[in-house]
Amino acid sequence: MVSHAFFAATSVEPTAEGHYVGEVREGWSIADNANGGYLLAIAARAMCHASGRPDPVSVTAHYLRPARPGPVTVDTEVVKTGKTFTVVRATLASDRELLSLLGTFGTLHGDGELAPAPALVDAEPPDLPSVERCVPMPATDGFPPPFMANVDLRLHPDDATFLQGIKSGYARMRGWFAFPDGEPVDTIGLLQATDAFPPTIFNADLPVAWTPTVELTAHVRARPAPGWLRCSFQTRFVTGGFLEADGEIWDETGRLVAQSRQLALVPRG
Amino acid sequence: MVSHAFFAATSVEPTAEGHYVGEVREGWSIADNANGGYLLAIAARAMCHASGRPDPVSVTAHYLRPARPGPVTVDTEVVKTGKTFTVVRATLASDRELLSLLGTFGTLHGDGELAPAPALVDAEPPDLPSVERCVPMPATDGFPPPFMANVDLRLHPDDATFLQGIKSGYARMRGWFAFPDGEPVDTIGLLQATDAFPPTIFNADLPVAWTPTVELTAHVRARPAPGWLRCSFQTRFVTGGFLEADGEIWDETGRLVAQSRQLALVPRG
Repeated sequence: MVSHAFFAATSVEPTAEGHYVGEVREGWSIADNANGGYLLAIAARAMCHASGRPDPVSVTAHYLRPARPGPVTVDTEVVKTGKTFTVVRATLASDRELLSLLGTFGTLHGDGELAPAPALVDAEPPDLPSVERCVPMPATDGFPPPFMANVDLRLHPDDATFLQGIKSGYARMRGWFAFPDGEPVDTIGLLQATDAFPPTIFNADLPVAWTPTVELTAHVRARPAPGWLRCSFQTRFVTGGFLEADGEIWDETGRLVAQSRQLALVPRG
Repeated sequence: MVSHAFFAATSVEPTAEGHYVGEVREGWSIADNANGGYLLAIAARAMCHASGRPDPVSVTAHYLRPARPGPVTVDTEVVKTGKTFTVVRATLASDRELLSLLGTFGTLHGDGELAPAPALVDAEPPDLPSVERCVPMPATDGFPPPFMANVDLRLHPDDATFLQGIKSGYARMRGWFAFPDGEPVDTIGLLQATDAFPPTIFNADLPVAWTPTVELTAHVRARPAPGWLRCSFQTRFVTGGFLEADGEIWDETGRLVAQSRQLALVPRG
Protein backbone atom coordinates (compact mmCIF):
# COMPACT_ATOMS: atom_id res chain seq x y z
CA MET A 1 0.00 0.00 0.00
CA VAL A 2 1.43 3.34 -1.03
CA SER A 3 -0.12 6.34 0.68
CA HIS A 4 1.31 9.09 -1.56
CA ALA A 5 1.69 11.55 1.29
CA PHE A 6 3.82 13.92 -0.79
CA PHE A 7 1.24 14.03 -3.56
CA ALA A 8 -1.50 14.75 -1.02
CA ALA A 9 0.54 17.39 0.79
CA THR A 10 1.35 19.24 -2.45
CA SER A 11 -2.01 18.86 -4.19
CA VAL A 12 -3.80 21.94 -5.41
CA GLU A 13 -7.32 22.46 -6.64
CA PRO A 14 -8.28 24.88 -9.40
CA THR A 15 -11.00 27.28 -8.26
CA ALA A 16 -11.00 29.66 -11.22
CA GLU A 17 -8.99 30.13 -14.42
CA GLY A 18 -5.35 30.12 -13.29
CA HIS A 19 -6.23 30.22 -9.62
CA TYR A 20 -5.51 27.32 -7.26
CA VAL A 21 -5.93 26.59 -3.58
CA GLY A 22 -3.79 24.25 -1.51
CA GLU A 23 -2.46 23.84 1.96
CA VAL A 24 0.94 23.99 3.62
CA ARG A 25 0.63 20.93 5.83
CA GLU A 26 1.91 20.44 9.33
CA GLY A 27 5.01 18.28 9.45
CA TRP A 28 6.82 19.75 6.44
CA SER A 29 8.64 22.41 8.46
CA ILE A 30 12.15 23.10 9.62
CA ALA A 31 12.42 25.37 12.68
CA ASP A 32 8.73 26.30 12.31
CA ASN A 33 9.06 27.36 8.67
CA ALA A 34 7.86 25.22 5.78
CA ASN A 35 10.69 23.64 3.77
CA GLY A 36 11.55 25.54 0.59
CA GLY A 37 11.46 22.54 -1.73
CA TYR A 38 8.02 21.63 -0.42
CA LEU A 39 6.70 25.14 -1.13
CA LEU A 40 8.27 25.00 -4.60
CA ALA A 41 6.52 21.69 -5.24
CA ILE A 42 3.08 23.06 -4.30
CA ALA A 43 3.52 26.06 -6.58
CA ALA A 44 4.98 23.98 -9.43
CA ARG A 45 2.08 21.54 -9.29
CA ALA A 46 -0.31 24.43 -9.93
CA MET A 47 1.95 25.92 -12.63
CA CYS A 48 2.26 22.53 -14.31
CA HIS A 49 -1.52 22.16 -14.35
CA ALA A 50 -1.94 25.66 -15.72
CA SER A 51 0.62 24.94 -18.44
CA GLY A 52 -1.22 21.86 -19.69
CA ARG A 53 2.18 20.12 -19.86
CA PRO A 54 3.19 17.11 -17.78
CA ASP A 55 6.62 18.19 -16.54
CA PRO A 56 8.59 21.16 -15.18
CA VAL A 57 11.67 21.79 -17.33
CA SER A 58 13.14 24.83 -15.60
CA VAL A 59 11.54 26.47 -12.59
CA THR A 60 12.83 29.44 -10.59
CA ALA A 61 11.44 30.53 -7.23
CA HIS A 62 12.35 33.67 -5.32
CA TYR A 63 11.60 33.29 -1.63
CA LEU A 64 9.84 36.35 -0.24
CA ARG A 65 8.80 35.36 3.27
CA PRO A 66 8.82 32.30 5.54
CA ALA A 67 5.69 30.13 5.36
CA ARG A 68 3.72 28.54 8.18
CA PRO A 69 1.19 25.69 7.91
CA GLY A 70 -2.20 26.79 6.64
CA PRO A 71 -4.16 27.45 3.44
CA VAL A 72 -2.33 28.91 0.45
CA THR A 73 -3.24 30.09 -3.01
CA VAL A 74 -1.30 29.84 -6.25
CA ASP A 75 -2.10 32.43 -8.89
CA THR A 76 -0.71 31.47 -12.27
CA GLU A 77 -0.44 33.29 -15.56
CA VAL A 78 0.50 31.59 -18.83
CA VAL A 79 3.11 33.84 -20.45
CA LYS A 80 3.51 31.87 -23.68
CA THR A 81 2.29 28.61 -25.12
CA GLY A 82 4.56 27.33 -27.86
CA LYS A 83 4.86 24.10 -29.82
CA THR A 84 7.14 22.46 -27.27
CA PHE A 85 6.98 24.49 -24.08
CA THR A 86 4.65 26.64 -22.03
CA VAL A 87 6.04 29.42 -19.84
CA VAL A 88 4.11 30.22 -16.67
CA ARG A 89 4.62 32.74 -13.91
CA ALA A 90 3.03 32.37 -10.50
CA THR A 91 2.70 33.62 -6.97
CA LEU A 92 2.29 31.40 -3.92
CA ALA A 93 0.59 33.28 -1.11
CA SER A 94 -1.11 32.89 2.26
CA ASP A 95 -2.29 36.24 3.64
CA ARG A 96 0.95 37.57 2.13
CA GLU A 97 3.01 36.65 -0.93
CA LEU A 98 5.47 33.87 -0.08
CA LEU A 99 7.12 32.81 -3.36
CA SER A 100 7.35 34.42 -6.78
CA LEU A 101 7.97 31.93 -9.58
CA LEU A 102 8.70 31.62 -13.27
CA GLY A 103 8.98 28.36 -15.15
CA THR A 104 9.04 26.53 -18.47
CA PHE A 105 6.99 23.34 -18.71
CA GLY A 106 7.05 20.57 -21.32
CA THR A 107 7.22 16.82 -21.82
CA LEU A 108 10.32 15.03 -20.58
CA HIS A 109 11.60 11.60 -21.49
CA GLY A 110 10.84 8.76 -19.16
CA ASP A 111 12.69 5.74 -17.91
CA GLY A 112 13.35 3.29 -20.72
CA GLU A 113 12.34 5.74 -23.43
CA LEU A 114 14.88 6.56 -26.06
CA ALA A 115 16.29 9.99 -25.25
CA PRO A 116 17.20 12.23 -28.15
CA ALA A 117 20.77 12.09 -29.41
CA PRO A 118 23.35 13.53 -29.20
CA ALA A 119 24.49 13.08 -25.65
CA LEU A 120 27.48 13.94 -23.54
CA VAL A 121 27.94 13.21 -19.86
CA ASP A 122 31.16 14.59 -18.40
CA ALA A 123 30.41 13.55 -14.82
CA GLU A 124 29.47 10.54 -12.76
CA PRO A 125 26.74 9.92 -10.20
CA PRO A 126 27.93 10.54 -6.64
CA ASP A 127 29.70 7.52 -5.23
CA LEU A 128 27.54 6.42 -2.29
CA PRO A 129 27.65 3.37 -0.04
CA SER A 130 24.49 1.24 -0.25
CA VAL A 131 21.31 2.73 1.20
CA GLU A 132 21.63 0.39 4.19
CA ARG A 133 25.15 1.63 4.94
CA CYS A 134 24.18 5.29 4.76
CA VAL A 135 22.89 7.36 7.69
CA PRO A 136 19.15 8.08 8.07
CA MET A 137 17.91 11.43 9.34
CA PRO A 138 15.40 10.78 12.12
CA ALA A 139 12.59 13.32 12.56
CA THR A 140 12.45 14.97 15.98
CA ASP A 141 10.63 17.96 17.45
CA GLY A 142 13.93 19.85 17.33
CA PHE A 143 16.88 18.86 15.17
CA PRO A 144 16.66 16.90 12.88
CA PRO A 145 13.34 18.63 12.14
CA PRO A 146 9.81 17.20 11.74
CA PHE A 147 10.20 17.55 7.95
CA MET A 148 12.49 14.51 7.99
CA ALA A 149 9.48 12.25 8.63
CA ASN A 150 8.18 13.13 5.16
CA VAL A 151 11.34 12.42 3.19
CA ASP A 152 13.68 9.47 3.49
CA LEU A 153 17.26 10.74 3.39
CA ARG A 154 20.25 8.47 3.76
CA LEU A 155 23.42 10.51 4.08
CA HIS A 156 26.86 9.47 2.96
CA PRO A 157 28.61 8.52 6.23
CA ASP A 158 31.46 10.95 5.45
CA ASP A 159 28.93 13.80 5.27
CA ALA A 160 26.83 12.73 8.28
CA THR A 161 29.27 13.29 11.12
CA PHE A 162 27.90 16.82 11.58
CA LEU A 163 25.01 15.07 13.38
CA GLN A 164 27.57 14.33 16.09
CA GLY A 165 28.99 17.83 15.90
CA ILE A 166 31.93 16.92 13.64
CA LYS A 167 32.01 18.87 10.38
CA SER A 168 33.58 17.11 7.40
CA GLY A 169 35.30 20.33 6.34
CA TYR A 170 33.80 20.04 2.84
CA ALA A 171 30.69 22.12 2.15
CA ARG A 172 28.73 19.25 0.64
CA MET A 173 25.96 16.77 1.37
CA ARG A 174 25.56 13.53 -0.52
CA GLY A 175 22.99 10.86 -0.05
CA TRP A 176 19.97 8.89 -1.19
CA PHE A 177 16.49 10.36 -1.47
CA ALA A 178 13.09 8.65 -1.52
CA PHE A 179 9.64 9.18 -0.08
CA PRO A 180 9.20 7.07 3.07
CA ASP A 181 5.85 5.60 1.99
CA GLY A 182 7.21 4.37 -1.33
CA GLU A 183 5.52 7.05 -3.41
CA PRO A 184 7.38 7.20 -6.73
CA VAL A 185 9.30 10.43 -7.23
CA ASP A 186 7.82 12.19 -10.24
CA THR A 187 9.20 15.36 -11.78
CA ILE A 188 7.43 17.47 -9.12
CA GLY A 189 8.96 15.21 -6.47
CA LEU A 190 12.37 15.99 -7.97
CA LEU A 191 11.79 19.64 -7.10
CA GLN A 192 11.29 18.57 -3.50
CA ALA A 193 14.52 16.59 -3.66
CA THR A 194 16.48 19.69 -4.76
CA ASP A 195 15.88 21.24 -1.34
CA ALA A 196 15.49 18.46 1.21
CA PHE A 197 19.02 17.73 2.42
CA PRO A 198 20.70 19.51 5.34
CA PRO A 199 22.51 22.66 4.22
CA THR A 200 25.98 22.08 2.74
CA ILE A 201 27.25 24.73 5.14
CA PHE A 202 26.68 22.33 8.05
CA ASN A 203 29.84 20.59 6.88
CA ALA A 204 31.95 23.71 6.33
CA ASP A 205 34.36 25.10 8.90
CA LEU A 206 32.47 28.36 9.08
CA PRO A 207 30.46 29.98 11.87
CA VAL A 208 27.19 29.87 9.92
CA ALA A 209 23.98 28.28 11.12
CA TRP A 210 21.12 29.65 9.09
CA THR A 211 21.19 30.40 5.37
CA PRO A 212 17.81 31.60 4.09
CA THR A 213 17.22 30.89 0.40
CA VAL A 214 17.01 33.91 -1.86
CA GLU A 215 16.39 32.00 -5.08
CA LEU A 216 16.31 28.42 -6.29
CA THR A 217 16.35 27.23 -9.91
CA ALA A 218 15.81 23.60 -10.84
CA HIS A 219 16.31 22.05 -14.26
CA VAL A 220 14.59 18.71 -14.73
CA ARG A 221 16.18 16.60 -17.46
CA ALA A 222 14.14 13.39 -17.38
CA ARG A 223 11.48 11.48 -15.47
CA PRO A 224 13.26 9.35 -12.89
CA ALA A 225 13.14 5.57 -12.92
CA PRO A 226 11.50 4.01 -9.84
CA GLY A 227 13.78 3.65 -6.84
CA TRP A 228 16.23 5.65 -4.80
CA LEU A 229 17.76 8.86 -6.12
CA ARG A 230 21.46 9.60 -5.75
CA CYS A 231 21.90 13.23 -4.74
CA SER A 232 24.82 15.57 -4.31
CA PHE A 233 24.81 19.16 -3.10
CA GLN A 234 27.93 21.28 -3.02
CA THR A 235 28.94 24.85 -2.20
CA ARG A 236 32.12 26.26 -3.67
CA PHE A 237 31.69 29.95 -2.98
CA VAL A 238 30.72 31.61 0.29
CA THR A 239 31.48 35.20 -0.69
CA GLY A 240 29.99 38.67 -0.48
CA GLY A 241 27.36 37.54 2.01
CA PHE A 242 25.98 34.81 -0.27
CA LEU A 243 26.53 31.17 -1.01
CA GLU A 244 25.36 28.94 -3.83
CA ALA A 245 24.43 25.28 -3.45
CA ASP A 246 24.63 23.22 -6.63
CA GLY A 247 22.61 20.03 -6.73
CA GLU A 248 22.69 16.98 -8.98
CA ILE A 249 20.13 14.23 -8.83
CA TRP A 250 20.61 10.90 -10.59
CA ASP A 251 18.20 8.00 -10.77
CA GLU A 252 18.90 4.33 -10.08
CA THR A 253 19.67 3.67 -13.74
CA GLY A 254 22.54 6.18 -13.58
CA ARG A 255 20.84 8.98 -15.50
CA LEU A 256 21.07 12.63 -14.48
CA VAL A 257 17.45 13.63 -13.84
CA ALA A 258 17.84 17.11 -12.34
CA GLN A 259 20.27 19.92 -11.64
CA SER A 260 19.62 22.70 -9.19
CA ARG A 261 21.30 25.82 -7.92
CA GLN A 262 20.20 27.96 -5.06
CA LEU A 263 21.47 31.29 -3.85
CA ALA A 264 21.27 31.76 -0.10
CA LEU A 265 22.09 34.57 2.28
CA VAL A 266 24.93 34.09 4.73
CA PRO A 267 24.13 36.16 7.78
CA ARG A 268 27.19 37.33 9.70
CA GLY A 269 27.88 34.57 12.22
CA MET B 1 37.60 58.99 -24.26
CA VAL B 2 35.17 56.28 -23.28
CA SER B 3 32.03 56.09 -25.43
CA HIS B 4 30.02 53.73 -23.21
CA ALA B 5 28.42 51.99 -26.17
CA PHE B 6 27.05 49.17 -24.01
CA PHE B 7 25.41 51.59 -21.63
CA ALA B 8 23.83 53.47 -24.53
CA ALA B 9 22.69 50.28 -26.27
CA THR B 10 21.02 48.96 -23.10
CA SER B 11 19.58 52.22 -21.80
CA VAL B 12 15.90 52.43 -21.05
CA GLU B 13 13.65 55.37 -20.31
CA PRO B 14 10.74 55.28 -17.90
CA THR B 15 7.52 56.44 -19.55
CA ALA B 16 5.06 55.52 -16.82
CA GLU B 17 5.15 53.81 -13.42
CA GLY B 18 6.98 50.52 -14.05
CA HIS B 19 6.97 50.97 -17.82
CA TYR B 20 10.14 51.53 -19.84
CA VAL B 21 11.06 51.97 -23.49
CA GLY B 22 14.36 51.02 -25.07
CA GLU B 23 15.79 49.79 -28.31
CA VAL B 24 17.42 46.61 -29.52
CA ARG B 25 20.28 48.15 -31.50
CA GLU B 26 21.74 47.00 -34.77
CA GLY B 27 25.08 45.27 -34.33
CA TRP B 28 24.22 43.23 -31.23
CA SER B 29 22.99 40.23 -33.22
CA ILE B 30 24.16 36.73 -33.96
CA ALA B 31 22.70 35.18 -37.11
CA ASP B 32 20.13 38.00 -37.31
CA ASN B 33 18.86 37.50 -33.73
CA ALA B 34 19.82 39.77 -30.85
CA ASN B 35 22.27 38.20 -28.40
CA GLY B 36 20.58 36.77 -25.29
CA GLY B 37 22.87 38.46 -22.78
CA TYR B 38 22.25 41.80 -24.45
CA LEU B 39 18.48 41.37 -24.18
CA LEU B 40 18.88 40.31 -20.55
CA ALA B 41 20.89 43.47 -19.86
CA ILE B 42 18.23 45.76 -21.36
CA ALA B 43 15.51 44.14 -19.27
CA ALA B 44 17.63 44.05 -16.11
CA ARG B 45 18.46 47.74 -16.42
CA ALA B 46 14.75 48.53 -16.31
CA MET B 47 14.15 46.05 -13.48
CA CYS B 48 17.04 47.51 -11.51
CA HIS B 49 15.62 51.02 -11.92
CA ALA B 50 12.17 49.83 -10.90
CA SER B 51 13.64 48.11 -7.82
CA GLY B 52 15.33 51.29 -6.59
CA ARG B 53 18.40 49.14 -5.86
CA PRO B 54 21.78 49.52 -7.55
CA ASP B 55 22.57 45.90 -8.43
CA PRO B 56 21.05 42.68 -9.76
CA VAL B 57 21.63 39.83 -7.27
CA SER B 58 19.85 36.95 -9.03
CA VAL B 59 18.07 37.35 -12.35
CA THR B 60 16.32 34.68 -14.39
CA ALA B 61 15.14 35.12 -17.96
CA HIS B 62 13.04 32.69 -19.97
CA TYR B 63 13.50 33.25 -23.68
CA LEU B 64 10.19 33.25 -25.52
CA ARG B 65 11.02 34.36 -29.05
CA PRO B 66 14.00 35.61 -31.06
CA ALA B 67 14.44 39.41 -31.11
CA ARG B 68 15.32 41.67 -34.02
CA PRO B 69 16.61 45.26 -33.86
CA GLY B 70 13.90 47.82 -33.11
CA PRO B 71 12.03 49.46 -30.26
CA VAL B 72 11.19 47.39 -27.18
CA THR B 73 9.29 47.90 -23.97
CA VAL B 74 10.00 46.55 -20.50
CA ASP B 75 7.03 46.24 -18.19
CA THR B 76 8.07 45.74 -14.60
CA GLU B 77 6.19 44.89 -11.46
CA VAL B 78 7.68 45.12 -7.97
CA VAL B 79 6.72 41.89 -6.20
CA LYS B 80 8.20 42.72 -2.81
CA THR B 81 10.31 45.44 -1.28
CA GLY B 82 12.15 44.24 1.81
CA LYS B 83 14.85 45.65 4.03
CA THR B 84 17.69 44.23 1.93
CA PHE B 85 16.23 43.19 -1.41
CA THR B 86 13.53 44.06 -3.89
CA VAL B 87 12.01 41.36 -6.09
CA VAL B 88 10.82 42.42 -9.53
CA ARG B 89 9.20 40.59 -12.40
CA ALA B 90 9.23 41.88 -15.93
CA THR B 91 8.44 41.31 -19.57
CA LEU B 92 10.59 42.49 -22.46
CA ALA B 93 8.50 42.88 -25.62
CA SER B 94 8.50 44.29 -29.12
CA ASP B 95 5.20 43.64 -30.91
CA ARG B 96 5.34 40.29 -29.11
CA GLU B 97 6.69 39.16 -25.74
CA LEU B 98 10.38 38.24 -26.05
CA LEU B 99 11.64 37.53 -22.52
CA SER B 100 9.90 36.84 -19.23
CA LEU B 101 12.01 37.69 -16.20
CA LEU B 102 12.15 37.48 -12.43
CA GLY B 103 14.90 38.91 -10.27
CA THR B 104 16.11 39.98 -6.86
CA PHE B 105 17.95 43.30 -6.62
CA GLY B 106 20.06 44.76 -3.82
CA THR B 107 23.37 46.42 -3.02
CA LEU B 108 26.53 44.46 -3.72
CA HIS B 109 30.01 45.01 -2.40
CA GLY B 110 32.47 46.81 -4.58
CA ASP B 111 36.15 46.53 -5.33
CA GLY B 112 38.22 47.34 -2.28
CA GLU B 113 35.26 47.27 0.08
CA LEU B 114 35.37 44.87 2.96
CA ALA B 115 33.15 41.94 2.05
CA PRO B 116 31.20 40.32 4.86
CA ALA B 117 32.81 37.35 6.55
CA PRO B 118 32.75 34.37 6.60
CA ALA B 119 34.14 33.33 3.26
CA LEU B 120 35.02 30.11 1.48
CA VAL B 121 36.35 29.77 -2.05
CA ASP B 122 36.80 26.18 -3.18
CA ALA B 123 37.83 27.06 -6.74
CA GLU B 124 40.30 29.15 -8.66
CA PRO B 125 39.92 31.64 -11.48
CA PRO B 126 40.38 30.02 -14.89
CA ASP B 127 44.03 29.78 -15.85
CA LEU B 128 44.36 31.97 -18.93
CA PRO B 129 47.38 33.15 -20.90
CA SER B 130 47.76 36.94 -20.92
CA VAL B 131 45.19 38.94 -22.89
CA GLU B 132 47.78 39.52 -25.62
CA ARG B 133 48.39 35.79 -26.01
CA CYS B 134 44.69 34.91 -26.26
CA VAL B 135 42.68 34.85 -29.47
CA PRO B 136 40.38 37.77 -30.37
CA MET B 137 37.03 37.18 -32.06
CA PRO B 138 36.80 39.50 -35.07
CA ALA B 139 33.34 40.73 -36.03
CA THR B 140 32.25 39.82 -39.57
CA ASP B 141 28.99 39.92 -41.49
CA GLY B 142 28.81 36.14 -41.10
CA PHE B 143 30.76 34.17 -38.52
CA PRO B 144 32.08 35.46 -36.12
CA PRO B 145 28.95 37.61 -35.96
CA PRO B 146 28.53 41.42 -35.89
CA PHE B 147 27.92 41.19 -32.12
CA MET B 148 31.66 40.60 -31.64
CA ALA B 149 32.33 44.27 -32.49
CA ASN B 150 30.52 45.26 -29.28
CA VAL B 151 32.35 42.96 -26.88
CA ASP B 152 36.06 42.28 -26.66
CA LEU B 153 36.58 38.54 -26.19
CA ARG B 154 40.00 36.95 -26.00
CA LEU B 155 39.70 33.19 -26.09
CA HIS B 156 42.05 30.75 -24.46
CA PRO B 157 44.12 29.41 -27.39
CA ASP B 158 43.18 25.82 -26.45
CA ASP B 159 39.49 26.71 -26.81
CA ALA B 160 39.85 28.81 -29.97
CA THR B 161 40.84 26.19 -32.52
CA PHE B 162 37.17 25.69 -33.40
CA LEU B 163 37.61 28.92 -35.41
CA GLN B 164 39.80 26.82 -37.73
CA GLY B 165 37.34 23.93 -37.64
CA ILE B 166 39.21 21.95 -34.96
CA LYS B 167 37.14 21.22 -31.87
CA SER B 168 39.01 20.89 -28.59
CA GLY B 169 36.83 17.95 -27.57
CA TYR B 170 35.94 19.67 -24.27
CA ALA B 171 32.59 21.47 -24.13
CA ARG B 172 34.02 24.65 -22.68
CA MET B 173 35.02 28.21 -23.57
CA ARG B 174 37.43 30.23 -21.49
CA GLY B 175 38.66 33.71 -22.07
CA TRP B 176 38.85 37.37 -21.19
CA PHE B 177 35.93 39.77 -21.47
CA ALA B 178 35.85 43.56 -21.70
CA PHE B 179 33.99 46.23 -23.60
CA PRO B 180 36.04 47.37 -26.63
CA ASP B 181 35.65 51.08 -25.87
CA GLY B 182 36.94 50.74 -22.32
CA GLU B 183 33.51 51.13 -20.68
CA PRO B 184 33.82 49.69 -17.17
CA VAL B 185 31.80 46.50 -16.69
CA ASP B 186 29.19 47.20 -14.04
CA THR B 187 26.85 44.60 -12.59
CA ILE B 188 24.52 44.95 -15.60
CA GLY B 189 27.54 44.47 -17.85
CA LEU B 190 28.25 41.22 -15.99
CA LEU B 191 24.88 39.94 -17.20
CA GLN B 192 26.05 40.61 -20.76
CA ALA B 193 29.26 38.72 -20.03
CA THR B 194 27.31 35.63 -18.92
CA ASP B 195 26.10 35.17 -22.51
CA ALA B 196 28.68 36.61 -24.86
CA PHE B 197 31.12 33.78 -25.56
CA PRO B 198 30.70 31.24 -28.38
CA PRO B 199 28.61 28.24 -27.28
CA THR B 200 30.54 25.59 -25.33
CA ILE B 201 29.10 23.05 -27.73
CA PHE B 202 31.33 24.45 -30.50
CA ASN B 203 34.16 22.58 -28.81
CA ALA B 204 32.31 19.29 -28.23
CA ASP B 205 32.54 16.33 -30.56
CA LEU B 206 28.82 16.43 -31.24
CA PRO B 207 26.84 17.22 -34.39
CA VAL B 208 25.16 20.29 -32.87
CA ALA B 209 25.25 23.77 -34.35
CA TRP B 210 22.45 25.77 -32.81
CA THR B 211 21.35 25.65 -29.17
CA PRO B 212 18.58 28.16 -28.42
CA THR B 213 18.46 29.30 -24.81
CA VAL B 214 15.42 28.23 -22.82
CA GLU B 215 16.40 29.93 -19.57
CA LEU B 216 19.36 31.78 -18.10
CA THR B 217 19.96 32.58 -14.43
CA ALA B 218 22.79 34.84 -13.30
CA HIS B 219 23.94 35.40 -9.73
CA VAL B 220 26.02 38.52 -9.24
CA ARG B 221 28.26 38.34 -6.17
CA ALA B 222 30.14 41.63 -6.27
CA ARG B 223 30.84 44.72 -8.34
CA PRO B 224 33.87 43.97 -10.50
CA ALA B 225 37.13 45.85 -10.19
CA PRO B 226 38.14 47.80 -13.32
CA GLY B 227 39.88 45.70 -15.96
CA TRP B 228 39.49 42.47 -17.84
CA LEU B 229 37.23 39.72 -16.58
CA ARG B 230 38.33 36.09 -16.52
CA CYS B 231 35.47 33.91 -17.77
CA SER B 232 34.82 30.21 -18.00
CA PHE B 233 31.82 28.42 -19.48
CA GLN B 234 31.41 24.68 -19.31
CA THR B 235 28.84 22.06 -20.28
CA ARG B 236 28.87 18.71 -18.51
CA PHE B 237 25.51 17.28 -19.55
CA VAL B 238 24.04 17.11 -23.02
CA THR B 239 21.11 14.83 -22.25
CA GLY B 240 17.40 14.49 -22.89
CA GLY B 241 17.50 17.12 -25.62
CA PHE B 242 18.97 19.79 -23.33
CA LEU B 243 22.34 21.10 -22.23
CA GLU B 244 23.39 23.39 -19.42
CA ALA B 245 26.22 25.90 -19.64
CA ASP B 246 27.72 26.94 -16.32
CA GLY B 247 29.58 30.22 -16.23
CA GLU B 248 31.99 31.76 -13.76
CA ILE B 249 33.27 35.31 -14.01
CA TRP B 250 36.18 36.59 -11.96
CA ASP B 251 37.60 40.09 -11.86
CA GLU B 252 41.24 41.15 -12.17
CA THR B 253 41.70 41.08 -8.40
CA GLY B 254 40.82 37.36 -8.39
CA ARG B 255 37.34 37.68 -6.93
CA LEU B 256 34.37 35.69 -8.20
CA VAL B 257 31.91 38.34 -9.36
CA ALA B 258 29.22 36.23 -11.06
CA GLN B 259 27.97 32.72 -11.66
CA SER B 260 25.55 31.78 -14.39
CA ARG B 261 23.74 28.73 -15.68
CA GLN B 262 21.72 28.49 -18.80
CA LEU B 263 19.52 25.69 -20.08
CA ALA B 264 19.48 25.36 -23.86
CA LEU B 265 17.71 23.13 -26.32
CA VAL B 266 19.76 20.68 -28.34
CA PRO B 267 17.95 20.19 -31.62
CA ARG B 268 18.59 16.80 -33.20
CA GLY B 269 21.65 17.28 -35.40
